[in-house]
Amino acid sequence: MPETATLLVTCPDQKGLVSGISSFIFHNGGNILQSDQYTDVEAGIFLARFEFCLDGFQIPAGAIADRLRSLAEEFSMEFEIHFSDHIPKVALFASRLPHCLEDLLQRQQAGEFKAEIGVVVSNHPDAGEIAARYRVPFLHFPITAETKKRQEAEELRELRSLGIELIVLARYMQVLSEDFIANYPNRIINIHHSFLPAFVGAKPYHQAFLRGVKLIGATGHYVTMNLDEGPIIEQEVARVSHRDSIEDMIRKGRDLERTVLGRAVRLHLGHRVLTYGNKTVVFD
Amino acid sequence: MPETATLLVTCPDQKGLVSGISSFIFHNGGNILQSDQYTDVEAGIFLARFEFCLDGFQIPAGAIADRLRSLAEEFSMEFEIHFSDHIPKVALFASRLPHCLEDLLQRQQAGEFKAEIGVVVSNHPDAGEIAARYRVPFLHFPITAETKKRQEAEELRELRSLGIELIVLARYMQVLSEDFIANYPNRIINIHHSFLPAFVGAKPYHQAFLRGVKLIGATGHYVTMNLDEGPIIEQEVARVSHRDSIEDMIRKGRDLERTVLGRAVRLHLGHRVLTYGNKTVVFD
Amino acid sequence: MPETATLLVTCPDQKGLVSGISSFIFHNGGNILQSDQYTDVEAGIFLARFEFCLDGFQIPAGAIADRLRSLAEEFSMEFEIHFSDHIPKVALFASRLPHCLEDLLQRQQAGEFKAEIGVVVSNHPDAGEIAARYRVPFLHFPITAETKKRQEAEELRELRSLGIELIVLARYMQVLSEDFIANYPNRIINIHHSFLPAFVGAKPYHQAFLRGVKLIGATGHYVTMNLDEGPIIEQEVARVSHRDSIEDMIRKGRDLERTVLGRAVRLHLGHRVLTYGNKTVVFD
Amino acid sequence: MPETATLLVTCPDQKGLVSGISSFIFHNGGNILQSDQYTDVEAGIFLARFEFCLDGFQIPAGAIADRLRSLAEEFSMEFEIHFSDHIPKVALFASRLPHCLEDLLQRQQAGEFKAEIGVVVSNHPDAGEIAARYRVPFLHFPITAETKKRQEAEELRELRSLGIELIVLARYMQVLSEDFIANYPNRIINIHHSFLPAFVGAKPYHQAFLRGVKLIGATGHYVTMNLDEGPIIEQEVARVSHRDSIEDMIRKGRDLERTVLGRAVRLHLGHRVLTYGNKTVVFD
Repeated sequence: MPETATLLVTCPDQKGLVSGISSFIFHNGGNILQSDQYTDVEAGIFLARFEFCLDGFQIPAGAIADRLRSLAEEFSMEFEIHFSDHIPKVALFASRLPHCLEDLLQRQQAGEFKAEIGVVVSNHPDAGEIAARYRVPFLHFPITAETKKRQEAEELRELRSLGIELIVLARYMQVLSEDFIANYPNRIINIHHSFLPAFVGAKPYHQAFLRGVKLIGATGHYVTMNLDEGPIIEQEVARVSHRDSIEDMIRKGRDLERTVLGRAVRLHLGHRVLTYGNKTVVFD
Repeated sequence: MPETATLLVTCPDQKGLVSGISSFIFHNGGNILQSDQYTDVEAGIFLARFEFCLDGFQIPAGAIADRLRSLAEEFSMEFEIHFSDHIPKVALFASRLPHCLEDLLQRQQAGEFKAEIGVVVSNHPDAGEIAARYRVPFLHFPITAETKKRQEAEELRELRSLGIELIVLARYMQVLSEDFIANYPNRIINIHHSFLPAFVGAKPYHQAFLRGVKLIGATGHYVTMNLDEGPIIEQEVARVSHRDSIEDMIRKGRDLERTVLGRAVRLHLGHRVLTYGNKTVVFD
Repeated sequence: MPETATLLVTCPDQKGLVSGISSFIFHNGGNILQSDQYTDVEAGIFLARFEFCLDGFQIPAGAIADRLRSLAEEFSMEFEIHFSDHIPKVALFASRLPHCLEDLLQRQQAGEFKAEIGVVVSNHPDAGEIAARYRVPFLHFPITAETKKRQEAEELRELRSLGIELIVLARYMQVLSEDFIANYPNRIINIHHSFLPAFVGAKPYHQAFLRGVKLIGATGHYVTMNLDEGPIIEQEVARVSHRDSIEDMIRKGRDLERTVLGRAVRLHLGHRVLTYGNKTVVFD
Repeated sequence: MPETATLLVTCPDQKGLVSGISSFIFHNGGNILQSDQYTDVEAGIFLARFEFCLDGFQIPAGAIADRLRSLAEEFSMEFEIHFSDHIPKVALFASRLPHCLEDLLQRQQAGEFKAEIGVVVSNHPDAGEIAARYRVPFLHFPITAETKKRQEAEELRELRSLGIELIVLARYMQVLSEDFIANYPNRIINIHHSFLPAFVGAKPYHQAFLRGVKLIGATGHYVTMNLDEGPIIEQEVARVSHRDSIEDMIRKGRDLERTVLGRAVRLHLGHRVLTYGNKTVVFD
């Protein structure tokens, strides 16, 4: 039996939602540890997260989703339920820059993520050494315009066979195809090295330098068909001045990227991020 | 009929709390707009805030507290219920420095607080002009060691007759007596011009300057018997460097003080702050 | 005799600049209180600020510029010299929203600016009351598409006759014409209520809300021909979440706008901002 | 010949300092890349940093200090001169917690420090594996009350024989003796896991949790005889709420500690930190 369950709910706003869900949990012997809800009044949407203790819960974990179905139908509810004994497998995609990859591996080792890093994937061989150091399997998929389609198909096969549930692009410099993304909807997190929507696209620190901004940023977001336009999970900024060269911005940016990506991944793995439209609700 | 009610709850942690409260709201026809809860597992304490719509609610506002009593007894619950049509009256206490006083009056005018500024109280006459400009009654209570006891008693009489529910010390430089404070438990908010617990007591910017810190701060907190040691509601910091003189710190600090005090007062007036022990739970 | 002089210098980078300038100051009996320099190595440009004490200086203030000319020619130097006994006159332009206007007036009263607020200009009559409260002359210039050209010409006449040296757009909602701007190059400061270059143009908080960003910002910049694209002086951000409505963003934004505009104006008045290309060098 | 020299100067404030130093540099053929100065008017102290290009400089690097002597005497100047071709050796001291140690090693690998990590020293054997991974020599010095004196003497011998110029305490949990510290005055940087002067001593996150602060901090400072009271180089804070357990604070704190310690070490190695009294001047 897992220790806790986390229930994520999205549905049209209506009376009785909190009561209905919390009573389901209570009457089956659960104790709510944390509950959060948000109502987008204009859109008429209700989103909620309930984390409850399963000690003494009268429904076996495997049957809870089934038993929730009638409540879900009553409220036209979409829901997910996650159990604390399930340790999801994560794939880290990297290219040449190692700082985000190493940082995520270290956070995992420090116990910040309830997850297993199942594989490191890269279009460059360099990341293999880092993966080896942390005893994580490594897959090298060089990508060219010609091989991309084939390589992505192969990647997907591997990810599936490894049971990967979340893909984290740790400064991965290849654009994923729509087909690839469609396999992991809201399950691919990217770090963009600017304060989106400022400086989309390539070389954002160069763009920031040329514009003369006084703060630089980083954005952790889900990957969608539209590059750099997916739902934002987390953002942070750091101060710069005229004294900062592009190299200084890149250096300061590394700290931002690591911090923001680490937070975004942790929030996702804690089942604290719900998406609707092109936005996120983050129950932190 | 008010539009919404906000229910604040503190009780020993136990199963069925969220379910019990939310079902009470639902079964009487209320719609929960926002709910927040926090369980201090070690202390075994449950704290929660429910904001619900009273449109169609079947219990008259004036009777809700009564009808909640049996639920409250069942769960050994302490609770407060606040209604959106009640506009609380606030007293602002100031001394010579006008920035926090003016800032609060402006925020009120901009609609940031659901409150009425009922009176400005000062031990100096200067604040009278500011109060006049915002058409707020002004009371001048000069304080000396000899007159303090008498003046405080007089102040309390006035505050009571005005129906004041919250006192905000907007850089008020007199220490309130224990007797005075006892009349407004967790209903007096002070702004201390340092990042508490650093630099308690007098002249914190001077202390900060001497210590050579690289950040200065401000703290909004409830006033208790122990000076500068009450429950913290909000804190913020700003960067300083060796170039900043004490005067620069005082100037930068003014912005911090205004921001932090404004936020603390707004959080309190939104019934978003619960205290337990010497700490706050802030449901923002 | 003024107390201090501030010399701002821009020229091609070359050896001997700091030595040449500081020796000029020293050999004429001045004491450098603060010096800052920045070399844009790629552009080959040197920018510097020297603040020096005039007590015992052997050249009368009025003759210093003349005496600097040979040095300036030697180094192909553009320079400005400012004296501490010159209190520049500032015009504040506002529309309906009062918070930035009031804030600037208060900062001026608190002694944060070494300047005189010479006039408040608005296309709405409302600001007149605020101006009156601070005993600042008020000019009301309603603007329509037809009257704009004429009104701007009239405004310029008034500003000139008042000796205005700096114009601050305190949430002034009219776009200034190129002609108008050309009269005050790098002498008009605007506050844009977003983190530029994100959300240029109208209703940036609405844009930010729709995009689902996790931080909102404000930008103080010089006004140039290209709307929202002038050299940035200062920027700041504040955290928002899904809970923040557009109204909450507007409220939080007010604090950002006040702080950023206040800092930008203070930096300009302290002769701490130099522009080159479309960027600023801020010697703070 | 090194590329650049950095001259750090401390002396009584007086006229002609900038002129004297910059002329010395210019007349010997140097080009000043960056100069910063600070005058503590009350204390009457002048502190400055000049970074200049040695290309075409007419004095050999080894002779510059000698040639500066007469200028130094004239102005009662204490000075240090550093050359860019000198790569200082740094010792990292760690105990059980690896995050700061790993972070510094990674920053060094990323080229953030112009330094060589000469040795990792620890009172625990665990750090040995990390040191090995980065190919840095490791010294294990278990410390007990009885062995401390002897072990420190041995450590000093090793540090001296390795030519170590800077010691960084990367969450090193042993208190260094006064004797040890006296060997590296302003050459030992510690990271304290609180916003000093709040929460000095042991378990600052526990103290912060108990006090209910809304921000936690970290402080990078030089180590002096008085624990946690040395000159502060850099500080940073992060937001916490009632939801954050002590473990959450420790986790958030790790990011703060890494960032602050990294910045403090980089500033020191860039010869950007001068100390006077118990404070620092940071020319960043």
